[in-house]
Amino acid sequence: MAPPDPEPKPTPKPEPEETTPPPTRRRPGGRTARIRTQVLDAVLAELGEHGFDGLTTDAVAARAGVHRTTVYRRWGDVGGLLADVLDAASDDDWQPPDTGSLEGDLTALNDEIQSALTAQPPIVTALIAASFRSEKAAHAQQRLWEDRYARCEIVVNRAVRRGELPPHTDARRLLIAATAPLYHHLVLLRTPPDPQLPADAARTAALAAAAGAFAEPRSAGGS
Amino acid sequence: MAPPDPEPKPTPKPEPEETTPPPTRRRPGGRTARIRTQVLDAVLAELGEHGFDGLTTDAVAARAGVHRTTVYRRWGDVGGLLADVLDAASDDDWQPPDTGSLEGDLTALNDEIQSALTAQPPIVTALIAASFRSEKAAHAQQRLWEDRYARCEIVVNRAVRRGELPPHTDARRLLIAATAPLYHHLVLLRTPPDPQLPADAARTAALAAAAGAFAEPRSAGGS
Repeated sequence: MAPPDPEPKPTPKPEPEETTPPPTRRRPGGRTARIRTQVLDAVLAELGEHGFDGLTTDAVAARAGVHRTTVYRRWGDVGGLLADVLDAASDDDWQPPDTGSLEGDLTALNDEIQSALTAQPPIVTALIAASFRSEKAAHAQQRLWEDRYARCEIVVNRAVRRGELPPHTDARRLLIAATAPLYHHLVLLRTPPDPQLPADAARTAALAAAAGAFAEPRSAGGS
Repeated sequence: MAPPDPEPKPTPKPEPEETTPPPTRRRPGGRTARIRTQVLDAVLAELGEHGFDGLTTDAVAARAGVHRTTVYRRWGDVGGLLADVLDAASDDDWQPPDTGSLEGDLTALNDEIQSALTAQPPIVTALIAASFRSEKAAHAQQRLWEDRYARCEIVVNRAVRRGELPPHTDARRLLIAATAPLYHHLVLLRTPPDPQLPADAARTAALAAAAGAFAEPRSAGGS
């Protein structure tokens, strides 16, 4: 989780057409990677300014300074562009916070989520909204969340090693319990941000965990 | 919460034009109310079949058997139609389940939510998705959830009266904690429905509540 908070970069200078050789020597793939960065940054900037309804492959190409056929051939449509933005967001070394306690880690994680979901321009919420418009974007959003929740399991594993939690704690259910109220308030209920919400939701999950809510097996009598 | 589960009714017979007097005597407002029902049922049916992208005022008017100018004058656009569907969903006598225990009530409530969010045709999820397309629909969706969560506070009040919870329990936070994982999984993460999820999320919230997670005031040392 910890949704990505991709900052749109300043629009780069126009890209020479594909027929023009690159002006300097680069490692193989360097130019392709650079065009991808320019295009995905342009998607984020356009999305932040105009939302999904104003997002077009032509506007993205123009802003990125690449030829429209380059965008069309490589990404196909707006859904393909959004999916690649979301997939690219996993290409980082993000790790969940390590504060020394379960409740501290979950609070810091929720602070990151609340910041991302209330940032201006509202890139993360625009990407979530776009996932209701495009199947490709929806699947990419799923993959990104899957990646983030998988990375966050270390928070629970550390708490188990510290003896804060029983060994067979269901990390995923605990992480969902801790973070779901943030998404529910800020994405669905659209309530104004509550500065206490990240800590409250973290504390609730930690108290439930301490009371055995996420002990496996889930049926009574186990663990 | 407990999202509405409005069943689209069979398409009614075509409505006579507005200039035709109603064929039988009705109380004042009866015809207006009847047209509203026909139109909102048609919105649900169209939404279930075609989703937001296939929803038009013309198609709704045709399906409802009313004149397109009637729809246009009264509801304006698709956003207005969706907002009225959501507002109409509060016009019911829905009450949360009363099973005799906090965990039982929350489980039954979550079962209703999971049923609504996984129903076919996916009316409730289509309405939530539409709330990302239309400001009017978004505000109406907010009002509906506010109404549902307010009605659900009785679940917490009953638990307080039974002595299951301390007197100053924050009902809203408890209800959000209990229900948010359902929405998070089924609307945002789009994970397949887990039959244990309603009971798990209910039990988690009940354990956290028993451990004092929702005792007010929220700062430590109070209550």
